[in-house]
Amino acid sequence: MKLYEFEGAPSPRKVRLFAAEKGLSLPTVSVDLRAGEQFSDWYRQIQPRCTVPALALEDGTVIGDSEAICRYLEAQQPDPPLLGETALEQARIAEWLRRIELAGYGPVADALRNQSPAFAGRALPGPDPIEQIPALAERGRWRAQRFWPTLDAALAAGGPWLLGDRLSAADLFAFATLEFAQRVELGPDQELPALASWQQRLRQRSTVQA
Amino acid sequence: MKLYEFEGAPSPRKVRLFAAEKGLSLPTVSVDLRAGEQFSDWYRQIQPRCTVPALALEDGTVIGDSEAICRYLEAQQPDPPLLGETALEQARIAEWLRRIELAGYGPVADALRNQSPAFAGRALPGPDPIEQIPALAERGRWRAQRFWPTLDAALAAGGPWLLGDRLSAADLFAFATLEFAQRVELGPDQELPALASWQQRLRQRSTVQA
Repeated sequence: MKLYEFEGAPSPRKVRLFAAEKGLSLPTVSVDLRAGEQFSDWYRQIQPRCTVPALALEDGTVIGDSEAICRYLEAQQPDPPLLGETALEQARIAEWLRRIELAGYGPVADALRNQSPAFAGRALPGPDPIEQIPALAERGRWRAQRFWPTLDAALAAGGPWLLGDRLSAADLFAFATLEFAQRVELGPDQELPALASWQQRLRQRSTVQA
Repeated sequence: MKLYEFEGAPSPRKVRLFAAEKGLSLPTVSVDLRAGEQFSDWYRQIQPRCTVPALALEDGTVIGDSEAICRYLEAQQPDPPLLGETALEQARIAEWLRRIELAGYGPVADALRNQSPAFAGRALPGPDPIEQIPALAERGRWRAQRFWPTLDAALAAGGPWLLGDRLSAADLFAFATLEFAQRVELGPDQELPALASWQQRLRQRSTVQA
């Protein structure tokens, strides 16, 4: 197996965190997004949608989505379970992954990609030219600030992890989203104590530091 | 179990199609989205995010997302498998569900909700007031027209189903998305033969007609 990824990008980080918790070490190939390498001929042959991460299997099959890659790794190596064991755990984690995507990561990406000059003409990932929409950047900023308190409230009501006692993919995906948001100045604009201590707990894990 | 849903809405339909393929008959409760019943006090107590579908379990636990509900049903009743058996099938289906959501359903919803007067002030589902962005409606229309040919090409290259020989949740979710898009005049604006015959095959299933 080989993981195509890029150090600073949030989606590949979700997969790296997930693999680290499984104790898996995946050989990686860097695709330099800053230099536009995802649009190169060689990478288009691997992933025509020009996105990272992508996992290439031994037989050349490519899985091109962070959650799908994690589901593959979970099925290959169930221990420790990060996508749920019981039906209800599986559902809860799937529900969180969708909320994180649609209400957290999506708004952060909308805010960044519809405003930063670095993304002019490519406000969405992939090969299609997409013009920026300033009003969507504004909506994204507003929605991101609505999202962080919902994470904080969920952790304050339960914890130490989003699903309760056991770390899951929901924590890893939310953490990658939060740290990325903070790096592009879209993190929480208020103090959120439960969220902050959860983030510290994650940062201290050897799997995260690795 | 009880499924809160609404007849004309696409996301509850995904769950109804999925349950029908499993041979499950879920008692349903209609939440009249046209009358704004998702914002009523009684429904907020069930699903504070004011969205359908929501599945209430015997003990009162609520799962509030179409994919999460399907994952719950799959774990409870694995036969017939609709979310994949092997690791690779599971990954492929997860990858399709994300593409359908992010590149198909999302653009259709963007186009509809950012333009139709019926959605003024609530361009996104949920209780938050969200103003419409006309440029996002336009982007959504354009992206939807980019999406249908990718479905068609995948079916033309393989088939009869998106994953090949076996019907999966990917077909059901894509079908619900396509039929909804057509109803709001956002379906394909060109002839796509493989997509059209796949749609016919699905329409003829007894589970879909039910």
